[in-house]
Amino acid sequence: MESAEQEISDQRLLKGARARAAIARHAADVASAEGLTGLSLGRLAGDLGVSKSGVATLFGTKENLQLAAVQSAREVFIEHVVTPAFTEARGMPRLRAFIDHWFDYIGEPVFPGGCFRVAGVVEFDSRPGPVRDALAADRADWFAVLEKEIGRAQEQGFLTGQDPHTLAFQLDAIVGAANTAVRMGDPGAIATARGIVYALIGAKA
Amino acid sequence: MESAEQEISDQRLLKGARARAAIARHAADVASAEGLTGLSLGRLAGDLGVSKSGVATLFGTKENLQLAAVQSAREVFIEHVVTPAFTEARGMPRLRAFIDHWFDYIGEPVFPGGCFRVAGVVEFDSRPGPVRDALAADRADWFAVLEKEIGRAQEQGFLTGQDPHTLAFQLDAIVGAANTAVRMGDPGAIATARGIVYALIGAKA
Repeated sequence: MESAEQEISDQRLLKGARARAAIARHAADVASAEGLTGLSLGRLAGDLGVSKSGVATLFGTKENLQLAAVQSAREVFIEHVVTPAFTEARGMPRLRAFIDHWFDYIGEPVFPGGCFRVAGVVEFDSRPGPVRDALAADRADWFAVLEKEIGRAQEQGFLTGQDPHTLAFQLDAIVGAANTAVRMGDPGAIATARGIVYALIGAKA
Repeated sequence: MESAEQEISDQRLLKGARARAAIARHAADVASAEGLTGLSLGRLAGDLGVSKSGVATLFGTKENLQLAAVQSAREVFIEHVVTPAFTEARGMPRLRAFIDHWFDYIGEPVFPGGCFRVAGVVEFDSRPGPVRDALAADRADWFAVLEKEIGRAQEQGFLTGQDPHTLAFQLDAIVGAANTAVRMGDPGAIATARGIVYALIGAKA
């Protein structure tokens, strides 16, 4: 009996984790277009056809739901932009792969509102608290990934004399601006941004 | 009697226009930090100690209030960044002045949430409608101002071989990213961005 009870308990946990992940993913979709502030337990429950009390049991507060959306969006970014580049050799080939996947990610966005980080960071930059901290940590991690690969590319003889943080800042600024410009109705922005970014890393488009 | 009535009517109009401008300006302050979506007639009435029905009479709808906030923020940007640069000679001196005033504007922000355009554009980029149109028109006007001055600087022998739109896109992306980074707790971002921007226009910090 104990093992049957254990199994039921395990299945419940698994089901809860799956439901939590599905709701967090939908929360990230909604937040990418309408903002993290627009999220509510009731809105998500309605969208997904589940009870509000069920969502409340899984997340508790709106802030926990926002934090789960940030985490879910982070995982999506890693899956689409970071991980695929690890098939490339370290240094310049991998930096180039990050950039190519990043442009794909904003050009044919996974999220309806485009890059989640751009939307989240700008929305929360003036609201201190755990959500801004999570977004800042995610941003810092992405900068660290870029800077590490820029450093390796420099060891290979590329990007000489450039400060890795300054270059990462430029890359992030240009891709982020392209993400916003495209959504504002400026379809040429991705080509403009690609040209700028490839010139920065000394690569051909 | 007609002239006295006319005077009373004029004064009412003037009072209404002043109240409208004051409310729109406060709406821009609130929206810079909390987003245009967070604006409500009741919230603003409460903040300013006036009746909600009075605010409703002046603006009618939340969308009109959002549009008035965008217009008010546009006027503030023109007052702080665009107009002061017109004391400088056309071309390179004026372009440099735009950039200096722009950095001052994000470094010691007039709005509590920093640059209103950055916040508004990212918030509304996925929400088609009159507010996004107003933000897009404002963004296009600013790009046109920059591109015109870049073109004049090129006639003076500066920035040769650069595409004015691409350079304007870079300047806007870098300053916008600095605005966000500072508010995310990265105080060195303005110095980083200044270095990038001055290198782009071939000027010394």
